[in-house]
Amino acid sequence: MLSVGVNGYGTIGKRVADAVRVQPDMRVAGVTKTKPGAEAAIAEERGYPLYTIEQDRLDLFREAGFEPAGLIEELVQESDVIVDATPGGVGETYLPMYREYDTPAIFQGKEDHEMVDASFNARANFGECVGADYLRVVSCNTTGLTRTLAPLVDNYEIEAARATLVRRGGDPDQSERGPINDTIPDPVDIPSHHGPDIGTVLPEIDVTTVALRVPTTLMHVHAVSLTLAASPDPAEVASVLDDESRVFLVPEYLDVEGIAALAEYGRDRGRPRGDMWESCLWDGSLTVDGRELYFIQAVHQESNVVPENIDAIRAITGSMDAADSMQLTDEQLGIGNWPGQLRDAPTPTPPSE
Amino acid sequence: MLSVGVNGYGTIGKRVADAVRVQPDMRVAGVTKTKPGAEAAIAEERGYPLYTIEQDRLDLFREAGFEPAGLIEELVQESDVIVDATPGGVGETYLPMYREYDTPAIFQGKEDHEMVDASFNARANFGECVGADYLRVVSCNTTGLTRTLAPLVDNYEIEAARATLVRRGGDPDQSERGPINDTIPDPVDIPSHHGPDIGTVLPEIDVTTVALRVPTTLMHVHAVSLTLAASPDPAEVASVLDDESRVFLVPEYLDVEGIAALAEYGRDRGRPRGDMWESCLWDGSLTVDGRELYFIQAVHQESNVVPENIDAIRAITGSMDAADSMQLTDEQLGIGNWPGQLRDAPTPTPPSE
Repeated sequence: MLSVGVNGYGTIGKRVADAVRVQPDMRVAGVTKTKPGAEAAIAEERGYPLYTIEQDRLDLFREAGFEPAGLIEELVQESDVIVDATPGGVGETYLPMYREYDTPAIFQGKEDHEMVDASFNARANFGECVGADYLRVVSCNTTGLTRTLAPLVDNYEIEAARATLVRRGGDPDQSERGPINDTIPDPVDIPSHHGPDIGTVLPEIDVTTVALRVPTTLMHVHAVSLTLAASPDPAEVASVLDDESRVFLVPEYLDVEGIAALAEYGRDRGRPRGDMWESCLWDGSLTVDGRELYFIQAVHQESNVVPENIDAIRAITGSMDAADSMQLTDEQLGIGNWPGQLRDAPTPTPPSE
Repeated sequence: MLSVGVNGYGTIGKRVADAVRVQPDMRVAGVTKTKPGAEAAIAEERGYPLYTIEQDRLDLFREAGFEPAGLIEELVQESDVIVDATPGGVGETYLPMYREYDTPAIFQGKEDHEMVDASFNARANFGECVGADYLRVVSCNTTGLTRTLAPLVDNYEIEAARATLVRRGGDPDQSERGPINDTIPDPVDIPSHHGPDIGTVLPEIDVTTVALRVPTTLMHVHAVSLTLAASPDPAEVASVLDDESRVFLVPEYLDVEGIAALAEYGRDRGRPRGDMWESCLWDGSLTVDGRELYFIQAVHQESNVVPENIDAIRAITGSMDAADSMQLTDEQLGIGNWPGQLRDAPTPTPPSE
């Protein structure tokens, strides 16, 4: 049983803790929070020992009626693995502490690739990450693209890959962020960092990404175009993608128009927090035009790296191989339990013969 | 002096009327409005004879204190050309009336290409439209893309062209439209109609477009990627585009981050209604990677077809050739009066020798 500490119980951290809790081979050693508040209250309610970052904060928590378990050093010391889900750039400041206590750690996509032994995506490079001391789960956009590109790389010769990323302005709780009524090239430079970042886990493909930020909070949307060496069979492409548990081919009969309807569908299906862990690819957008392959997909920025963090825990501890880990993670979370386009789509009754 | 009637004094029509007014070779014969209100009041204030569509409406206008000039049939009869700026699909219902009075007419992009003699873009196919009876100015997205693609087609061999269109949800006054907090593949099918529509004016290039609708009102944004037969010189590409009066290469030193800042810049420069008639291409986005050429541009959906409507009036009447018409239109409107990236950008002082 692996003891997992979660440093930073925020958007990603709280989801990782909940995902750890339902795995049979791991438990939540504790979580850290810098301030009391609603998320800290949820952590206590779920029985996650609540740590904080310095002595003064312990008093702050106690005054607010919480019962903090102690300071982060203790959590790092007693954890087999730390998942660092602190804000971008903050993870780096904790690296010396993780080193001091010899605790392997998994960072998130906003930390530098150079800081860790390897960047991680379960589908792309689990094997290369086994036994590392420090890993970095690539960002939500990179994870979302890697999940659809990796199986295509396995099955086709791809000459060029391009993606326009229509990024959400902020998460639903970041209501102070913009933009309002704006579409912002962010960055205006091409490629954005996402394309090169895919190369840290899937070096077989060179992706040029262009990123724009818009006034939404629910999901990122990617318009992807690939040039293949030869014209692919569209049905075969759909089948290759549908075989991936972490790709949801959104069937046309669901009439899911956009990310708002996708998010609603996730909530209706009882997903925790409505989370959409999979890359959600509109089946109706999958288009082959000669050697060009096009599709549009949505990526839930709050949750899609969560299963990768779980798999990264097993990779860094060397406790399971890629296939077993991904299958177990998927089963425990309920990933891939969508009505499949190819599996379950209602078949029109053939005319009687 | 050409007498121009504007049927439909709305978002496009009112701008076309104002643009006609400042041309030395044409005058506004009148405009039509179906209902009294703020736009009708502006029309009267500017001295545009105000027509309406049926007898009952005349009374409606009179009761509201307006002095309507008459019914649309009279306007069509006395106009040398009609610019039909009625809502999409409505133009078609007026075609029999234009025919009856033998008045040539210019429709907007939402009408069918098949309905007219030719679709029109001044830069791409002015010559082919001279003397036609019925023209259609292609839509704002198509116009915006055609303006940047036509000069590239003239100068380079383009093997493939792709564009992701991040479309505004509605115009600033269409506050009842969505989306709110959504990114919607619209259509989910690839290509969207825009790519094929470019072919109606610029058949030399085959563009695959993917369209998404987002919660903005100010401008469309296009992420464009082209595969050329050979790697182009980036400075030459910039120069080719900068030579186009209807392409504004947005210089980096303006620090214009997105469409909101672009719109603000247009307002600050005293443009009527803040209109940005040009395709606004972020110079910082212009990127060459081998044979791939990338850029991001913004298109002001309310105004960018206005100069094309003016040129179409001269094409349909055969009163001027393309170069003269475009130059006159540009001069009278003030198009291309931006600080040029290549012309006026502050040059860093070279180190003293």
